[in-house]
Amino acid sequence: MSPDTADTEPRSSGEFVRSPNHFASRITADGSSGWPVEAGRYRLVVSHACPWANRSVIVRRLLGLEDAISLAVADPIQDERSWRFTLDPGNVDPVLGIRFLSEAYYAANPDYTGGISVPAIVDVPSGKLVTNDYPRISLDLSTEWKAFQRPGAPDLYPEALRSEIDAVNEGVFTDVNNGVYLAGLSRGQEAHSRAYRRLFDRLDALSERLADQRYLVGDTITEADVRLFTTLVRFDAVYHGHFKCNRSKLTEMPVLWAYARDLYQTPGFGDTVHFDHIKRHYYQVHTHINPTGVVPEGPDLSGWATPHGRDSLGGRPFGDGTPPS
Amino acid sequence: MSPDTADTEPRSSGEFVRSPNHFASRITADGSSGWPVEAGRYRLVVSHACPWANRSVIVRRLLGLEDAISLAVADPIQDERSWRFTLDPGNVDPVLGIRFLSEAYYAANPDYTGGISVPAIVDVPSGKLVTNDYPRISLDLSTEWKAFQRPGAPDLYPEALRSEIDAVNEGVFTDVNNGVYLAGLSRGQEAHSRAYRRLFDRLDALSERLADQRYLVGDTITEADVRLFTTLVRFDAVYHGHFKCNRSKLTEMPVLWAYARDLYQTPGFGDTVHFDHIKRHYYQVHTHINPTGVVPEGPDLSGWATPHGRDSLGGRPFGDGTPPS
Repeated sequence: MSPDTADTEPRSSGEFVRSPNHFASRITADGSSGWPVEAGRYRLVVSHACPWANRSVIVRRLLGLEDAISLAVADPIQDERSWRFTLDPGNVDPVLGIRFLSEAYYAANPDYTGGISVPAIVDVPSGKLVTNDYPRISLDLSTEWKAFQRPGAPDLYPEALRSEIDAVNEGVFTDVNNGVYLAGLSRGQEAHSRAYRRLFDRLDALSERLADQRYLVGDTITEADVRLFTTLVRFDAVYHGHFKCNRSKLTEMPVLWAYARDLYQTPGFGDTVHFDHIKRHYYQVHTHINPTGVVPEGPDLSGWATPHGRDSLGGRPFGDGTPPS
Repeated sequence: MSPDTADTEPRSSGEFVRSPNHFASRITADGSSGWPVEAGRYRLVVSHACPWANRSVIVRRLLGLEDAISLAVADPIQDERSWRFTLDPGNVDPVLGIRFLSEAYYAANPDYTGGISVPAIVDVPSGKLVTNDYPRISLDLSTEWKAFQRPGAPDLYPEALRSEIDAVNEGVFTDVNNGVYLAGLSRGQEAHSRAYRRLFDRLDALSERLADQRYLVGDTITEADVRLFTTLVRFDAVYHGHFKCNRSKLTEMPVLWAYARDLYQTPGFGDTVHFDHIKRHYYQVHTHINPTGVVPEGPDLSGWATPHGRDSLGGRPFGDGTPPS
């Protein structure tokens, strides 16, 4: 997630435009990229607020990569220097020894002037950012890091289903993952309304798809579910009110609400969700849409623990694998 | 409803403080106040956005006072001169001949420097504001204007129930009618959170009261129901998101939601509600909490027309009277 200032440069139409990811190196099993997979070498920097970072945290958990790739958690509130390690003793990340994520960006490119975003993977020995290419990061955890995955790790991006997963992801990205930002951060009525309509049209189509099918693609959890989940879990807490995506709450869309609860209650999903970070980030950082910085007390989150009834649809959450511990 | 600038002067604590009503003359049956009831003499100025004004519109309808007291509807969007008649041809109220409600305020008191609020009752012959004392206005329509009420007009403020109605109204005003403003317009977290808790505590208590009782006081509609209704009908459209009152939507509070639908579907209530005015006013006028002025497309309002099932609780909506036409 880019800092507010980079995230919200409006086009003349007032439409929100997401900044590109500037660092797109890959960490590969064969090392051909110059960045070979290696246990203990890389550090994944996230904010628990950020849906794009949440993807990589979930996938890392599901695949049991915690020992291979360590995790740094930034403060949910950026300052003008962006993401910072103010949750750590001395305000310094204990592994990277830096106070701001931007230091890793500048170590990789001293002339860099773009936004500072999470998730970011940093090479610990050199302190250099390797990649902030979030769509690639989670896929590469599945495909390039196989040697370090736990026994029983599920296949979240199975070859036979990749084209279907990619197609689902594309629609979900455009209309849902990024669609909520378009609806919420656009400064014009027209841009808001267009994004709002596309968002709910897509959510309705996803509801239909998921009405008699437990997961988005195939009968097991895949990358597609991870990507939809990280937006759904933030929906009522921030997107519904703060981003004005208010045709209905997630709790009022029965199929998606049950689907989201099913995932939330699956090890590796709900245990990565920090509503406190989520709410404080959005409501306090986007001062151009919430100048007071007041964070709503709600919503009531108790529903996330209620039975979802989706087991009756069958499906095998982890396929031939097992849940994470 | 006072204009934004007057409404939102913060205390040092950041708490929202409602401006007092400065014009509190009464129009009385015996004329002792100097303002005698008289058909055709007074004009009620409202905004359909405003819950305080909505009360008087509902009561006027229920009592059949439309022919006795005419109605002026201001544009839901105030400018720096406050409420204006830009919905009328030539931007002039056709009866009062003024462009801004403030002209009637200054006609009554050229030195007036306070806020300009609706509802307001203006004496047509002199063009002077008589009263903007909203809690009194609706009660006086019930009690002082009896001579001009329609045959079959209900008694919305029956003598035997007044102390109970007053007591209910007091809690509803503090925690609900005004409570949503406290939660939404306060600039500090502490003030928001306190108002939020009191609001939902009160709504829970009201839910309990209304669980097996069709109306708030006695078995017929009274002034107490009118006052709760005008806040409930705005709840999901503006208070839930814009004012951050987001523990739950009205649609998620089953007793209150059925109660509100019951009233909405009763002649004299829903037919006074203009969601378009409501949404545009709040989202476009409160620029200090919504600087972009973007108005959300939602919520889905179709639920208001669905069966409420409250008839099974008994009750006689209009008592010995009849519904308005």
